[in-house]
Amino acid sequence: MTFPRILIEVPAWVDDLELSGTYPRLEDRMQLVIELSRLNLEHRTGGPFGAAIFEIDSGRLVAPGMNLVVPSSCSVAHAEMVALMIAQQVVACFDLGGPGMPARELVTSTEPCAMCFGAIPWSGVRRVVCGARDEDARRIGFDEGPKMSDWVAALEQRGISVTRDVCRDSARAILQQYGTEGGVIYNSRGGPVP
Amino acid sequence: MTFPRILIEVPAWVDDLELSGTYPRLEDRMQLVIELSRLNLEHRTGGPFGAAIFEIDSGRLVAPGMNLVVPSSCSVAHAEMVALMIAQQVVACFDLGGPGMPARELVTSTEPCAMCFGAIPWSGVRRVVCGARDEDARRIGFDEGPKMSDWVAALEQRGISVTRDVCRDSARAILQQYGTEGGVIYNSRGGPVP
Repeated sequence: MTFPRILIEVPAWVDDLELSGTYPRLEDRMQLVIELSRLNLEHRTGGPFGAAIFEIDSGRLVAPGMNLVVPSSCSVAHAEMVALMIAQQVVACFDLGGPGMPARELVTSTEPCAMCFGAIPWSGVRRVVCGARDEDARRIGFDEGPKMSDWVAALEQRGISVTRDVCRDSARAILQQYGTEGGVIYNSRGGPVP
Repeated sequence: MTFPRILIEVPAWVDDLELSGTYPRLEDRMQLVIELSRLNLEHRTGGPFGAAIFEIDSGRLVAPGMNLVVPSSCSVAHAEMVALMIAQQVVACFDLGGPGMPARELVTSTEPCAMCFGAIPWSGVRRVVCGARDEDARRIGFDEGPKMSDWVAALEQRGISVTRDVCRDSARAILQQYGTEGGVIYNSRGGPVP
């Protein structure tokens, strides 16, 4: 038996962006990520979520990410996971915080779901910066999964700082737009065990 | 700016396996998964973890998985995630439990870490079958991440049943072998926030 490979690529519209390469201010990093969420919605290439990996001190962009669950046929392809995985390809290492590397951060347009939360400690990032809150995603029907209520403390105990509510209103506006337009909510189902 | 794609493939040794296609007994499914963990260790293609997706009723193998973190430069490439992502490529859908599909399960040689736990509800599987326990992985130095203590109940509340301790001794033996051989423990670091 042979099995298909897993292939995930950023959409073609990313190549057309005028990415400056360096984003010194935290708000500028978040505005880029929100723009990725907006463009992903506009181009219908996935859900209304954007993320990116930056070097914390310099603000250099390492990798963008956006939700690609539906076009990639991959429930793992949340924006945060895509950004982390592309960044690891850029640096050719599974650890974004390896010896001799600059400290890196995950900037995400919405707080991470249970899966993305669990992926963060393995990725090597040292900071997580969030725009919209969990409840903003839930308000349009998305589910954040079985995430512990003290997730911020759990990351900080592992040496990963968390900064919340950066440009929250702008980030939330994209979620609301998706909800208003009746975008696909591709959650898992509940129901009885078969 | 352009960015690399994410590409994850099973190692070449998988093509050489005599996979029977159908595994009616639960123990046979687990023995295949444990064999994947053993071969991954023997071929030095990743950590000592195996997983697979099966159709629950027929026992048909949908996709194998094995830990590919180091060779793929991808902290996400745990055995469970690889199996889920390949299975979704096989069925060409992000949802392994979509309408009209047979119920599917994740069989894993060791209980899922925090990330893989969080990924399970999004994948569409309806059952999780585990070999070794969390503490068996921790005993050789692996970290299961910030996983809620009542993770089994959290999955079952979402209609995903959990079966534990299937061939636990055999699964644990591979972990112990890896520990004895001084295999890489590629966890994240702790330490102060920069």
